[in-house]
Amino acid sequence: MAAQTKPVLYGYYRSSCSWRVRIAFALKGIEYEQKPINLIKDGGQQLTDQFKAINPMQQVPAVSIDGITLSQSLAIIQYIEETRPEPRLLPADPMQRAHVRIICDIIASGIQPLQNLYVLQKIGEDKVQWAQHFINRGFQALEPVLKETAGKYCVGDEISMADICLVPQVYNADRFKVDMTQYPTIRRLNQTLVEIEAFKASHPSRQPDTPDDLRL
Amino acid sequence: MAAQTKPVLYGYYRSSCSWRVRIAFALKGIEYEQKPINLIKDGGQQLTDQFKAINPMQQVPAVSIDGITLSQSLAIIQYIEETRPEPRLLPADPMQRAHVRIICDIIASGIQPLQNLYVLQKIGEDKVQWAQHFINRGFQALEPVLKETAGKYCVGDEISMADICLVPQVYNADRFKVDMTQYPTIRRLNQTLVEIEAFKASHPSRQPDTPDDLRL
Repeated sequence: MAAQTKPVLYGYYRSSCSWRVRIAFALKGIEYEQKPINLIKDGGQQLTDQFKAINPMQQVPAVSIDGITLSQSLAIIQYIEETRPEPRLLPADPMQRAHVRIICDIIASGIQPLQNLYVLQKIGEDKVQWAQHFINRGFQALEPVLKETAGKYCVGDEISMADICLVPQVYNADRFKVDMTQYPTIRRLNQTLVEIEAFKASHPSRQPDTPDDLRL
Repeated sequence: MAAQTKPVLYGYYRSSCSWRVRIAFALKGIEYEQKPINLIKDGGQQLTDQFKAINPMQQVPAVSIDGITLSQSLAIIQYIEETRPEPRLLPADPMQRAHVRIICDIIASGIQPLQNLYVLQKIGEDKVQWAQHFINRGFQALEPVLKETAGKYCVGDEISMADICLVPQVYNADRFKVDMTQYPTIRRLNQTLVEIEAFKASHPSRQPDTPDDLRL
């Protein structure tokens, strides 16, 4: 499918779900435009009526592509995968695909939602402890799963959506000072992945809206 | 693919994520065995070492199928969809599939994780208010999305994974006494769906582990 115009990503440099989509675009070599939505400034630009019309969940990311606007990072990535299949982000074998999706869902349903900005704002002063608790709980489940499925990457030796979910979640864990020595497999995979160009180029420290003092 | 033995569902009658899997099996006419895991009794049977070996997230559902054990309801359902494609639970068109997945992910990442048992136990006495807050927030986003995508069902006139996610989430909303009059589209879709045999047979009130006083 040839896109008439470049896809537009509404994202935020430090949002782990926005980063997932940036990695997918980078791995597939798809050029896209970025429209930064600052989740902190002006009380949160995602809360404006203008952005609510783009994504009623008032969250980033959202992507305009092929004449429609999509939200929810994994739905976006799977749409990209189905319309721009090369290089693939899901293995061909159904059982391997299931392993990829289990890892994605442990992160995307089991960890990230419990430590995102909106929830932490509601938790208030205990937010660091809360975030650490839920990241640790998720990583304690993820570590034995990855020990079974991993090769060079999360599932075998092929980069997949699981890797796309893992790296931004480890970045969040670092922000919340989670002790990663408990998770040798997660740590080893992350160290390998962050050296790959698509993960580097899409890193929060290198986006158009990255503040100067965080820029690498 | 012909299954040698019946799939086994480790679930709990009232778990909305277990119900999702039960609906998928019912829609596809797949016979399965149930091994109930009581999330309340004995301090939570999902926390035993025995169950931790089945699902390290210590959550239901998990499914043993085709010689492997899978966790995470949407990963399970997509594996079933890819290995037992009829009747399909995802539309053929990529944009329609994206709409289905957005609805699934709003529920599975944006609502359900914030009101599941584990989180509410951590919240403590404010748990009803907390659950109502996050269900309302999610439904306020879901209502305009469904207004655009719905036909007879969540996306057009074909039952999909979106419907499988919607009905158990509305059941949870009812448990937490969310005012559903604010969400006419969600309510209308739910009313249609709960009349369908696959949704009825899989309902929490009709499972092997349903307590007698809740049985219909």
